[in-house]
Amino acid sequence: MSTRTDELAGGLLRHIHEQIAASDLTYEEFGALKQWLIDVGEAGEWPLFLDVFVESAVEQNAFKGREGSKGTILGPYHLEGAPVLSAPFELPRREDEQGERIVMTGRVVDASGTPLPGAVLDAWQADAEGLYSGFDARLPEGILRGKVIADDEGRFEIRTILPAPYTIPTEGPTGRLCKAAGWSPWRPAHIHVIVTAEGHEELVTQLFFDQGEHLDDDVAGAVKDELVVKPEVGPYAPERSFSYDFTLATVHASTPDTAGAVA
Amino acid sequence: MSTRTDELAGGLLRHIHEQIAASDLTYEEFGALKQWLIDVGEAGEWPLFLDVFVESAVEQNAFKGREGSKGTILGPYHLEGAPVLSAPFELPRREDEQGERIVMTGRVVDASGTPLPGAVLDAWQADAEGLYSGFDARLPEGILRGKVIADDEGRFEIRTILPAPYTIPTEGPTGRLCKAAGWSPWRPAHIHVIVTAEGHEELVTQLFFDQGEHLDDDVAGAVKDELVVKPEVGPYAPERSFSYDFTLATVHASTPDTAGAVA
Repeated sequence: MSTRTDELAGGLLRHIHEQIAASDLTYEEFGALKQWLIDVGEAGEWPLFLDVFVESAVEQNAFKGREGSKGTILGPYHLEGAPVLSAPFELPRREDEQGERIVMTGRVVDASGTPLPGAVLDAWQADAEGLYSGFDARLPEGILRGKVIADDEGRFEIRTILPAPYTIPTEGPTGRLCKAAGWSPWRPAHIHVIVTAEGHEELVTQLFFDQGEHLDDDVAGAVKDELVVKPEVGPYAPERSFSYDFTLATVHASTPDTAGAVA
Repeated sequence: MSTRTDELAGGLLRHIHEQIAASDLTYEEFGALKQWLIDVGEAGEWPLFLDVFVESAVEQNAFKGREGSKGTILGPYHLEGAPVLSAPFELPRREDEQGERIVMTGRVVDASGTPLPGAVLDAWQADAEGLYSGFDARLPEGILRGKVIADDEGRFEIRTILPAPYTIPTEGPTGRLCKAAGWSPWRPAHIHVIVTAEGHEELVTQLFFDQGEHLDDDVAGAVKDELVVKPEVGPYAPERSFSYDFTLATVHASTPDTAGAVA
């Protein structure tokens, strides 16, 4: 355990020391950094900052070479305990919910294409203003969050609205960093999904929308080409719809548990 | 401004991403790191953590090539407003103050050896148990902190006690990191001094003691050979004493102010 923490924390500190010399960091900048780190904690923005600026590197490393559908970052806005939805499988919405109605369909299968009946899809998303329930008081609790169970053929259907692109909070220390550095604070529109099925690796991912804004300057660096869908009007329904099949990897041999090794 | 913040913050993030891949960081470790960063803020340990594990690199970079005496880290325990002492120039102590009495003498001079009358020495130190007033409630306020003014020939004298080595706080997140990584939490015994004189660069430094424990495993990496003194019994006093001349650099042309560029 101690060797692993030494490797991780020692390695990070050595990299930080190198950057201090490489960029000729001044004492005044060190003081500003100290205050900024204090501010991040006081604003409760560590999950935000880390999920936006660090998680993508963790995700790409953790799942490199994994079979099946691409995953991407979880982000800071998932909530446990969303309800399991019944037909017509509509994510909870307000009576006057704004935004284009869309339908998401598809199947959950294993790496050989065999359906996985009973697979659970836990979906959450921002509303048409880019806000998440549970994090913005303007939305009632539970809006645009729900679970759907795949049927006997692994099929699922979710009715919802097209989410909007949004900026990460711009007034807090994470937003101030973006502004000072000249970085885009935008996330492209996306629907989050966690797909689980017994005996298979959990898939944490997001679906993005073809032709959407900010696909190329996602502040979180979480967009992958394989995760971009194209809603289109079909022959039987007024709404645009799209289909996406989630392929889950078989659980591989477990690796030693290193949780908590950092501190 | 934005270019500089981009350079600093972007560079740090790239280094962090590299370390994530190089050390094959897991999601569980990422979660532990997130909680640890939150804990550092809640424990109020950002100044401690940064001064112990980062400041030395900042100090070495900021003052590379500067003429005069060596500086080292300021650390988290300086307090503004210590009183100016009169003869016999004794740092405030309790009636029953423990610890060996020692006397520190010397001169403050410029790079050509010219004395700097009126130079101010702001000194602070831990007590014989390794505790600082203002940070540990067991010590009355103001203990072992004071300023001394150099005389017409740049000479000064400070009477105090030999401080003890101490560990950084071991119960908080910074101490937990040390323990998990197998790093020494010790600082060798030292007396802090900030020396200032008009027209000269401020010198922030520490003096360490020959043969003292933990000179080779200072958790803060702040020991420099030139800063180790050797108290010895002299012919005129019962206490051990040592002499140290502080040489201040002339103020150089000012560089652009980059304060606040990080956030």
